[in-house]
Amino acid sequence: MVSPLLTDLYQLTMAYGYWRLNMHNQEAVFHLIFRNNPFRGNYAVACGLDTVIDFLQNWHFSAEDIQYLSKLKTGNGEILFPRDFLDYLGQLRFTCDIDAIAEGTIVFPQEPLIRITGPLLQAQLLESTLLNIVNFQTLIATKASRVCEAAKGEPVLEFGMRRAQGPDGALAASRAAYIGGCSATSNVLAGKEFDIPVRGTHAHSWVTAFADEETAFAAYAKVMPHNCVLLVDTYDTLLGVRHAIEVGKKLREQGAELLGIRLDSGDLAKLSIEARAILDEAGFQQTKIMASNTLDEYVIQDLKQQGACISVWGVGTHLATAYDCPALDGVYKLSALRDQDGSWNYKLKLSEQAIKISNPGILQVRRFFSDDAHVMDVLYDTQLGVPEVPEMHRVDAPTTRAKLPDYDASIDLLLPVFRQGELVIERESIHKMRKRALDEVKQFLKNYPKEVYPVGLETHLYELKQKLINELTTAKR
Amino acid sequence: MVSPLLTDLYQLTMAYGYWRLNMHNQEAVFHLIFRNNPFRGNYAVACGLDTVIDFLQNWHFSAEDIQYLSKLKTGNGEILFPRDFLDYLGQLRFTCDIDAIAEGTIVFPQEPLIRITGPLLQAQLLESTLLNIVNFQTLIATKASRVCEAAKGEPVLEFGMRRAQGPDGALAASRAAYIGGCSATSNVLAGKEFDIPVRGTHAHSWVTAFADEETAFAAYAKVMPHNCVLLVDTYDTLLGVRHAIEVGKKLREQGAELLGIRLDSGDLAKLSIEARAILDEAGFQQTKIMASNTLDEYVIQDLKQQGACISVWGVGTHLATAYDCPALDGVYKLSALRDQDGSWNYKLKLSEQAIKISNPGILQVRRFFSDDAHVMDVLYDTQLGVPEVPEMHRVDAPTTRAKLPDYDASIDLLLPVFRQGELVIERESIHKMRKRALDEVKQFLKNYPKEVYPVGLETHLYELKQKLINELTTAKR
Repeated sequence: MVSPLLTDLYQLTMAYGYWRLNMHNQEAVFHLIFRNNPFRGNYAVACGLDTVIDFLQNWHFSAEDIQYLSKLKTGNGEILFPRDFLDYLGQLRFTCDIDAIAEGTIVFPQEPLIRITGPLLQAQLLESTLLNIVNFQTLIATKASRVCEAAKGEPVLEFGMRRAQGPDGALAASRAAYIGGCSATSNVLAGKEFDIPVRGTHAHSWVTAFADEETAFAAYAKVMPHNCVLLVDTYDTLLGVRHAIEVGKKLREQGAELLGIRLDSGDLAKLSIEARAILDEAGFQQTKIMASNTLDEYVIQDLKQQGACISVWGVGTHLATAYDCPALDGVYKLSALRDQDGSWNYKLKLSEQAIKISNPGILQVRRFFSDDAHVMDVLYDTQLGVPEVPEMHRVDAPTTRAKLPDYDASIDLLLPVFRQGELVIERESIHKMRKRALDEVKQFLKNYPKEVYPVGLETHLYELKQKLINELTTAKR
Repeated sequence: MVSPLLTDLYQLTMAYGYWRLNMHNQEAVFHLIFRNNPFRGNYAVACGLDTVIDFLQNWHFSAEDIQYLSKLKTGNGEILFPRDFLDYLGQLRFTCDIDAIAEGTIVFPQEPLIRITGPLLQAQLLESTLLNIVNFQTLIATKASRVCEAAKGEPVLEFGMRRAQGPDGALAASRAAYIGGCSATSNVLAGKEFDIPVRGTHAHSWVTAFADEETAFAAYAKVMPHNCVLLVDTYDTLLGVRHAIEVGKKLREQGAELLGIRLDSGDLAKLSIEARAILDEAGFQQTKIMASNTLDEYVIQDLKQQGACISVWGVGTHLATAYDCPALDGVYKLSALRDQDGSWNYKLKLSEQAIKISNPGILQVRRFFSDDAHVMDVLYDTQLGVPEVPEMHRVDAPTTRAKLPDYDASIDLLLPVFRQGELVIERESIHKMRKRALDEVKQFLKNYPKEVYPVGLETHLYELKQKLINELTTAKR
């Protein structure tokens, strides 16, 4: 369970500030968005919400946490947080509203994955933890989706634990990789915690623990006749294939089958083609060839183009660490604050880079479909609403106003998750999230194999944003 | 606490195999090594041992773990692990010997960071977890060391949580970054768990929560007069500096000081030079300029070359995820197995790539010094020993035999940590590990700013390895 102390210190110093100034219960709206699709791709897969729910349901500062905070000092030795503030923190319970996009949904830059509405102090304290959870799991679900797409429906097994970024870097990666489309993980704890299928047979050390490879394979088949996938590259790959076949023949005498062999080094295209021929010739057409060794979506595509005879893909480091883009650039921005008179005051942060100017308001994302195909996503302010015939300014081309093409269906993506701190949504099974991701990505890539998908601000929201930018730019002169 | 189920399933299927074949108590030796220095650098900083100690001291399968394992099935629906094996696992306690290199020590490819000696089944089960812990923390300690070197002794604060790889990806990164040389972290939980100094003041949301920047800065100074570092780039950076100065003047009237300003966007070199001039002219020569925004060792070097007036460095994503090389390639290989007659049987795994052929034996690393300067590291087999005048074959040029230059001191790096499952070493403070890393890296880089440091196999070990390779290569023909 994640502690509320898993936050940046400045969240606590700001919380103290809000409390001292009696702003802590002012109603605030924050949104968690990311700015760029990872991996130079054209989509991401939302992930991490269930972990966020666990975190929020257990969110409170323990006596031990408060004790730790009471010892912190400023640079000149003064106590950082006075006792009365710590007493307040100690009794604090989570009372925010949370709206979020379901896990496994395809999402795009600038779209709020989570909207947090509630007392300014609480909403501020959640920032770092929510970003930590959602950034990473969304990143890995997206990577997994890309790898599974490259494998064209053949099973991808996630094997990344040994080089993942710490114990939870492995555990959360296994969860997100499954939601993104992987078939199973090697991570036993992830299997137990998240109900993910687990897979695995043996390593090189099994082979080296015996006098020779034939003995090692025979021993493995003896103890695991119904789970026999043999790793053939400890000494000489093709000789290993022949040794595996000998074992396969003995398995058949007992009514079992050699399920597969695994290649873990060398030229995987060449070796798999040669191994396939040797296996087929010996009557082992059903024995699968599995490959591993720093695979990712690019290597898998390349192997397929070379005609590799591989039908199960073990993907480790590059998936579990998102090696070529190991962080999603999610941010968490204040977008509205309720005044004492009850009216909303919309907020944004300026930047020289347009993409870094945050969106004001209380936002929702409406996704339009035509014949089940994605048409466009429109961000709108829930107070301004959406006109019958919406128009929008695309995020990637904001100066032109785009009309919505024909559509026959639409849904609002942000769903109520918490109301005043109470969970109001039914927890989903991980298998349902995975199916959502597989189905939606497949549908999406039919029409958008590489193109940028249209996402924009509804015109009234766009105009409001421009007005606020102008006011802020004028004010500071 | 890390569960023993945080392992790859194949470790458990192999464990079951060893147990079925009555090999589970055969004494085995494994070594954990990495193959390449990360970040195209010429060293790494060992890290993660204390986390490994916690894991091993609590290593046992709970009733819940066993319950989960009992439900696993093979592809054709048979139970994977029979009851008697699970009963055995349930009562198993850690009884291995562990020797390891102290955290904060500088280390090189092929050097065992950990040597595991004990029952084959136990040593096998530890593989994935030990790799997960040590790979990541060593990676991050090394990255932190490089970033701190670039900062030339100026404080580096680790700010990576929000984009780290999951909650533990953040927590373990904060620990390793501190050991590698960082001065503090923003991660409050890491501060509490590991006794690391924590730092932080406010974010953009503090500024946007107020009517304007002047009000926001004045409010912050009011509530945190002795911890006042103001983030000046929410709307317009240099205007923000002037607003900070106004607040600084009021702080002085109360006997406090504006400690610093923080820049988080834009051209950091140009803005910091201009901000410095504005601060100095206003009499705020002591106010420090801190910078953040996707910094790493390369950006810091570049900023220093451009004359940036920055003296505190906030480094986040690129440090906590080791962005340009997000995984260390550590492996864990069986190198010796004791026969039933009590003699050791040395083991290795072949590969077409020389660097992937593992080293046989029961290894130790001896580091030689001359006048406190590093001379060379020699891997030797503890049974073969080291001659008075050792010779070695360098890992990066194995065919030539190198004589040891003059030296005046030597130490063996692997220290006894566990004996038969009992901890035999005193736990070190994290501050001692950090000092070790800072001191040793500084000393090392004097003589090896970029060059490859000589590491080799002691000649007798090298010859033994060649003999085993020849035997295996001949045997398989």
